[in-house]
Amino acid sequence: MNNRKKIAIVGVGLIGGSMALQLHEKKLSSRLIGVEASAQHAEQALEYELVDEVLPLDEAIIAADVIVLAVPVNVQVNLLPQILDKVTDQIVMDMGSTKSDLIAAVQNHPRRGRYVASHPMWGTEYSGPAAAVRGAFEGKAVIICNRSESDADAVEWVEKMYQKIGMRVTDMDARAHDLHVAYVSHISHITSFALANTVLEKEKVESAIFQIASAGFESTVRLAKSNPAMWVPIFLQNKENILDVLSEHIDQLTKFKDYIANSDQENLQSLIADANKIKRIIK
Amino acid sequence: MNNRKKIAIVGVGLIGGSMALQLHEKKLSSRLIGVEASAQHAEQALEYELVDEVLPLDEAIIAADVIVLAVPVNVQVNLLPQILDKVTDQIVMDMGSTKSDLIAAVQNHPRRGRYVASHPMWGTEYSGPAAAVRGAFEGKAVIICNRSESDADAVEWVEKMYQKIGMRVTDMDARAHDLHVAYVSHISHITSFALANTVLEKEKVESAIFQIASAGFESTVRLAKSNPAMWVPIFLQNKENILDVLSEHIDQLTKFKDYIANSDQENLQSLIADANKIKRIIK
Repeated sequence: MNNRKKIAIVGVGLIGGSMALQLHEKKLSSRLIGVEASAQHAEQALEYELVDEVLPLDEAIIAADVIVLAVPVNVQVNLLPQILDKVTDQIVMDMGSTKSDLIAAVQNHPRRGRYVASHPMWGTEYSGPAAAVRGAFEGKAVIICNRSESDADAVEWVEKMYQKIGMRVTDMDARAHDLHVAYVSHISHITSFALANTVLEKEKVESAIFQIASAGFESTVRLAKSNPAMWVPIFLQNKENILDVLSEHIDQLTKFKDYIANSDQENLQSLIADANKIKRIIK
Repeated sequence: MNNRKKIAIVGVGLIGGSMALQLHEKKLSSRLIGVEASAQHAEQALEYELVDEVLPLDEAIIAADVIVLAVPVNVQVNLLPQILDKVTDQIVMDMGSTKSDLIAAVQNHPRRGRYVASHPMWGTEYSGPAAAVRGAFEGKAVIICNRSESDADAVEWVEKMYQKIGMRVTDMDARAHDLHVAYVSHISHITSFALANTVLEKEKVESAIFQIASAGFESTVRLAKSNPAMWVPIFLQNKENILDVLSEHIDQLTKFKDYIANSDQENLQSLIADANKIKRIIK
């Protein structure tokens, strides 16, 4: 990692913008190039000094040593094969929340090896360049998928880069990745969106919520502020896993409903005691 | 509020213990008496210096100017009438999460006026004296219920006390209170318990969650660590309101499930855009 690289960030929003800040901060980039479909975001990316310049995608590919994809997962599926068509020895990586469809889209591409599939487990409920955060990703896990399909030099750079920005690298097969993130990330977002809609539907007089909403409520509903442009494509790409875990979640809620309806103290106690076991996982 | 009061805290756990710390810190108490059913909690309450002494309930009632109930809501319903039987001019207040049953239990009590029903909108997912927090309650809302049923001097002391510890006082009828807290507090706990059970049920191999669980997951599942002894009685006392909001929540989740199953991008987009409106309520 001695020589810094010219790095193009495709999509300078929450994730791409935060990555740009870290690449600069950790002295990993000699030049940061932004690629942005939105003229407003391009302007903000320069204004906040997330990137040194903004270029059209084709020019950025030629100018860069590394191309980082940080656009919604439906856009990535279309863009990644087009980018691989144009690279020679650049490294191409993504940071998206679903992996099977994306990897399948370039499975037989002659330059598949230049692409490294990764997913840093970090985000916030905000979006766009203004949401970029200094010190993001640090202390969190990052998953590299199907490592053996990537060229050794490419995966080595990506892995060391994530370590330099303070992440713990974990390896997973793309299918295992999509299954696990359905459980520990995607379902949390659906729950939170649905909870927000429940409360907004029920609390027609919003002043009551304003007055009494507590930290517990904020905690469970915070993710409901997340951007639909990012999340709808994730839900659709990870459909089967999400439907499976969502059905289980509805069953679990229905248990609570039935036990409460029957004033079944013993079974409620035992459901909550089971839920308390999450203490083993989150401190 | 010039003269400090002798205050008995019945139940020196998360809520009672945190209140004891604040009463001392804000110089509202001349002496803090703990009442504890658990010998271990009594010992901890003294060890952590939450209270000056621990007394049996009857002695504490005689010794105190103010009696603060901070026990599970099913215990409060039994205890409050017994305490009112024994008070002369002491002030009695509770801090519980449900109000209709408790107020009904003392509706015709000759000393009903000495009791002030209140609910400070603060808590954490931890319990017991060790969970008591300095600076708790500050900046949050507290609801006083059915103010007109309490004696003027009693409600005045309670209101000023809450203001001194940094809370915003709001008035509500007990039935409205129970309805609103079902929406903004109780449902969040059920969602979180059910989400924890969903993930623990699905993720048989826990190491995967350990490795990749992110801040978003922690945020939505944090409340699942909450104490069943506190929450089962709340769910049963506020049964009708909770069943109503829980049915709505299951309906909302089912909408997500159906739209995802049908890859209905447009309706998913619109569900999430609706959920985003929670931004108006939580910043």
